[in-house]
Amino acid sequence: MDGIFITLEGPDGSGKTTALKAIFEELKTLTDKQIVSTREPGGSPIAEKIREIILDTAHTEMDARTEALLYAASRRQHLVERVLPVLEAGDIVLCDRFVDSSIAYQGYARGIGETGIFKINDFATDGVQPDLTLYIDVPAEVGLRRIQKGMGTREFNRLDQEKQSFHDKVRAGYLNIARENPTRIVTIDGTQTPEEVVADCMQIIKARFFGN
Amino acid sequence: MDGIFITLEGPDGSGKTTALKAIFEELKTLTDKQIVSTREPGGSPIAEKIREIILDTAHTEMDARTEALLYAASRRQHLVERVLPVLEAGDIVLCDRFVDSSIAYQGYARGIGETGIFKINDFATDGVQPDLTLYIDVPAEVGLRRIQKGMGTREFNRLDQEKQSFHDKVRAGYLNIARENPTRIVTIDGTQTPEEVVADCMQIIKARFFGN
Repeated sequence: MDGIFITLEGPDGSGKTTALKAIFEELKTLTDKQIVSTREPGGSPIAEKIREIILDTAHTEMDARTEALLYAASRRQHLVERVLPVLEAGDIVLCDRFVDSSIAYQGYARGIGETGIFKINDFATDGVQPDLTLYIDVPAEVGLRRIQKGMGTREFNRLDQEKQSFHDKVRAGYLNIARENPTRIVTIDGTQTPEEVVADCMQIIKARFFGN
Repeated sequence: MDGIFITLEGPDGSGKTTALKAIFEELKTLTDKQIVSTREPGGSPIAEKIREIILDTAHTEMDARTEALLYAASRRQHLVERVLPVLEAGDIVLCDRFVDSSIAYQGYARGIGETGIFKINDFATDGVQPDLTLYIDVPAEVGLRRIQKGMGTREFNRLDQEKQSFHDKVRAGYLNIARENPTRIVTIDGTQTPEEVVADCMQIIKARFFGN
């Protein structure tokens, strides 16, 4: 496929969603290609229904493997409906979270293991990988403090009920994944100001896809 | 685990649901163990919500891999909530459809391939397999004719909209799976009368688990 597929990853409160909006605006000044900013399950009615089941705070009895399979199902549908058509047209997709989130959250933090999560997501993506993943790294306590202060962009949900130890494992997972994928994943210091984070991201994007 | 896990499989209209009810009653006369008759997503609220998404006739744009992942998710939750507790208590579970259905319907008939479907279901079951699978074999046209005559036990749903060629592939898939698993799977001639089908099933169950 001719398009460019860029994902943003990071623990809760890492600032990636805010960064993605700024990157979207800056990218528009660099290229005439269509740029689509999305996040799962965004804009896919089926994927949204699946995500409602995952995030329902009443579903305390949900098994960790069920959750992982539902994320993979939602991802598949979003990929097919929203991402692949753009890439096939040669355009650019900016996606807030992708497979690495499942590996960090379900694989590492919930303890299912990286291998199983990779296996079901490899099925879901049928081998499609981002061309570039920007991992915004922050310590768990920094991210959680930001969320508690209401600096996040979304409502409190079931996953926020997890303890800090869970979020510590999420971060450790991300750091491992980044080490294992040194070409695809670039780690950004998320404790910087939002402007500095975006500047780092844009520098990498320009060097990787726009030859400067 | 000390329990006995028996699954019934077959194309639509094979008569397996009717057979399962009779087997349940006959089994009660053979043992003092608890016998639980179930089918996915039966009795698991989360699994039922997942199944609603799959069977919604409005979801014509659902990708085949999304569907397969949703079946695996529903299966996982049903297994954890309804099957494993019974097996762990040393009792008996009779289950209408399990992994083999996904391999036949999604793997073979939808053309995703057996390997991928096996992979995500191996994740969903975490390796749990039935002790015995009774495969009720009927040609697709026999099964479809029975459904059209209203002899089935359930409402018409999205999967019934498929053409006969689809159901032919389902049956071919089942026959392959049965060949590949000659110890676990026993094939029963589903064109016999309901009473003969049940008699065949009981003969196998008695020989396998009750020593006669």
